[in-house]
Amino acid sequence: MSQATAGIVITGTEVLTARISDRNGPWLSERLRETGFDVRHITICRDRSEDITSQLEFMHAQGVDLVCTTGGLGPTADDMTTELVAKFCGREMFLDEPLLEKIRGIVRVYAERFGWDMEAIDQGAVKQAHVPRGAAVLGPAGTAPGLVVEPAGDAGKPIVVVLPGPPRELQSIWAEAVETDAFKKVARGAVVFEEQMLRMIGVPEPEIARTLREFDDQVGLDGLEVTTCLRGGEMEILISHHPSDSARRQALVSTFEQQYGEAIFSRDGERIEQQVARLLDGRKLALAEAVTGGLLAKRMTDAAGASVYFQGSAVTYSNEAKAEVLGVDRAVLDAVGAVSAEVAEQMAVGALERFDADFAVSTTGIAGPTGGSEEKPVGTLYVHVAARDGRSNAFHIVLPGRREDVQDRSATVALHALRALLAG
Amino acid sequence: MSQATAGIVITGTEVLTARISDRNGPWLSERLRETGFDVRHITICRDRSEDITSQLEFMHAQGVDLVCTTGGLGPTADDMTTELVAKFCGREMFLDEPLLEKIRGIVRVYAERFGWDMEAIDQGAVKQAHVPRGAAVLGPAGTAPGLVVEPAGDAGKPIVVVLPGPPRELQSIWAEAVETDAFKKVARGAVVFEEQMLRMIGVPEPEIARTLREFDDQVGLDGLEVTTCLRGGEMEILISHHPSDSARRQALVSTFEQQYGEAIFSRDGERIEQQVARLLDGRKLALAEAVTGGLLAKRMTDAAGASVYFQGSAVTYSNEAKAEVLGVDRAVLDAVGAVSAEVAEQMAVGALERFDADFAVSTTGIAGPTGGSEEKPVGTLYVHVAARDGRSNAFHIVLPGRREDVQDRSATVALHALRALLAG
Repeated sequence: MSQATAGIVITGTEVLTARISDRNGPWLSERLRETGFDVRHITICRDRSEDITSQLEFMHAQGVDLVCTTGGLGPTADDMTTELVAKFCGREMFLDEPLLEKIRGIVRVYAERFGWDMEAIDQGAVKQAHVPRGAAVLGPAGTAPGLVVEPAGDAGKPIVVVLPGPPRELQSIWAEAVETDAFKKVARGAVVFEEQMLRMIGVPEPEIARTLREFDDQVGLDGLEVTTCLRGGEMEILISHHPSDSARRQALVSTFEQQYGEAIFSRDGERIEQQVARLLDGRKLALAEAVTGGLLAKRMTDAAGASVYFQGSAVTYSNEAKAEVLGVDRAVLDAVGAVSAEVAEQMAVGALERFDADFAVSTTGIAGPTGGSEEKPVGTLYVHVAARDGRSNAFHIVLPGRREDVQDRSATVALHALRALLAG
Repeated sequence: MSQATAGIVITGTEVLTARISDRNGPWLSERLRETGFDVRHITICRDRSEDITSQLEFMHAQGVDLVCTTGGLGPTADDMTTELVAKFCGREMFLDEPLLEKIRGIVRVYAERFGWDMEAIDQGAVKQAHVPRGAAVLGPAGTAPGLVVEPAGDAGKPIVVVLPGPPRELQSIWAEAVETDAFKKVARGAVVFEEQMLRMIGVPEPEIARTLREFDDQVGLDGLEVTTCLRGGEMEILISHHPSDSARRQALVSTFEQQYGEAIFSRDGERIEQQVARLLDGRKLALAEAVTGGLLAKRMTDAAGASVYFQGSAVTYSNEAKAEVLGVDRAVLDAVGAVSAEVAEQMAVGALERFDADFAVSTTGIAGPTGGSEEKPVGTLYVHVAARDGRSNAFHIVLPGRREDVQDRSATVALHALRALLAG
């Protein structure tokens, strides 16, 4: 049976004009994939009726089984998604009285708390309680109900799941959508594909391409979807396939392992920050950052529970701060400059002591765009890892890219240098 | 003359499957808008030929004047955008020899530096040097050239600007695309809309909505496109309009100024980090971070030239680190806890001294999801700003949201507390 397919229609002027980055498309794409759908298209448009309708019709023409829309369910006049979906599905709109009472109950609380004008608010509630006849109503989590609408007639149109724009509201009513009969009916044919993600460091994309070509010649890639993605100096390889093709996937992974060995640092998609946290195993980490400017600390504290292993970071931009906060020798700073192996080492050792940590990592370099020289061009990075037991790991590289890339890749290189020491 | 219209086609399995968030769509949307285009649709699909072609045909059916594609220009077999665009435009592909030499020159440097196999690399270069006949070649910034392709014949198809996926490469060749004759020809009819962005802090969205309704009743919003967006605790209001409507925009801005006064901290879109950097005017800043975990340092070092004003940040997660690195009194930590006004003050004063700065800002709080209590729930934040001349500014709030939101808003609140002291 062929895989069930889906499309996602994101509406909202603020998304199309790049004022906010859309979080709903990626979130829904993952949920739909988990449910076994092949997501074929995500489309984004303004709150304009002709554009929204064109995108719904495009999804129909593409033959998808299900469409999710996000946004355009608010109380104001520019919110028109529900009405357009009703039209697309050939369903008339009607005032759902019990839903109206529910929405009134919700908005009354806000109106009283913030002193809003109840008359204006009620006009919005009446608008939001108009839904297509026969649709399943979801929530509401805010004041806007979600909907699952089955098209009338037999034109082969997709069912439409209508969802609100605020990510919190959308996410909290998604489970209700999945449980509706209409959703289950199209999801029935869905096969949940298996996937495996490898992460590598230091392997160029063309080498991966050659490995894939050779594997295709010798074994065949049929049934495997392989996508490669360079991200911040690392290479991600995602292999997804029908459950019946798992032997072939294993053969491909073995081929990668034979060719790239140690360069593959993750076989289950685990990120470098997670590996470092796991390998620390309760031991304490400190950082001494110059070129990464706090990014390394941010990456190590993004996850909940960071306080178990993270002592802190000394972000020392000035020489003054390196000497005062980390105890770097002023004579060394004067003699060889802040961007040097010597200073990287003293920063790491200083952080180890100041933060009373088991491991410390330092970064010093030149992010650019200015500050480079012939001897130390933009992209120059020195990393030093120091351990309480006296072991150490030093690394020097010149990274490509602009300021943001250099900062990003420097943090990645530092984490890999740390991992190498932790993994022994 | 009606406004020129555009569409953006984002290709890449890693984008559609939510492995990376797309930065190119928003960036291109802004650039096209600045050039006077009305961007009508952004579409996203996998690296699949039928889906990419469907999206190009959809853009044609929608009658847009210009399409930008991003991604799918790499050396591997799943990169096929150029070939599909050539087909869409009715142009045959050919091997551009001078371009091949250029790409070879670029990859040779990498191959030598990193010891890559030149044979595998060269196959990729040959693939990337195949371009549609008659197309303008852009860059390359990496190894993949961008293209501006004019369709053959008179079917009224849009011109297509083919751009690479990596944002750095895409952004660095965009200026070349805009300067091509083909681009200029479609942009000729474009009217560059004017826009003004206000940024506010501490104003609820329903109040803004009411102000807009009242202005609409009394003066009229016709011709003004106003979009509001909450971002990290701040409210952005973007007003865009045809140049002939600028008096009406000024009237609306005056209305906002009368009603919200000091809450409007930016009238030209300048971000809070930029304001702080400007107001520092050469004086030195230090940070003492707990709950923001390096994010505040990262935000203050994202811009080039940060070393002029940024001394450093002590990211102190553990009590040990707060005492050792910032000199916070252990007795105070034991008595009132790390999340307290007292510790926030001692952190800021400690950073001021340790980093020899003119101003220091501290953050201490509870990002969650665990660690909250009845007295100090998740979202609790204490901020302290200390100046060398003895002035100070302290702030306490309980912020809504999840871990990431709390970290993000804490950094924003800290920057506003600093700005308040700097602005006097």
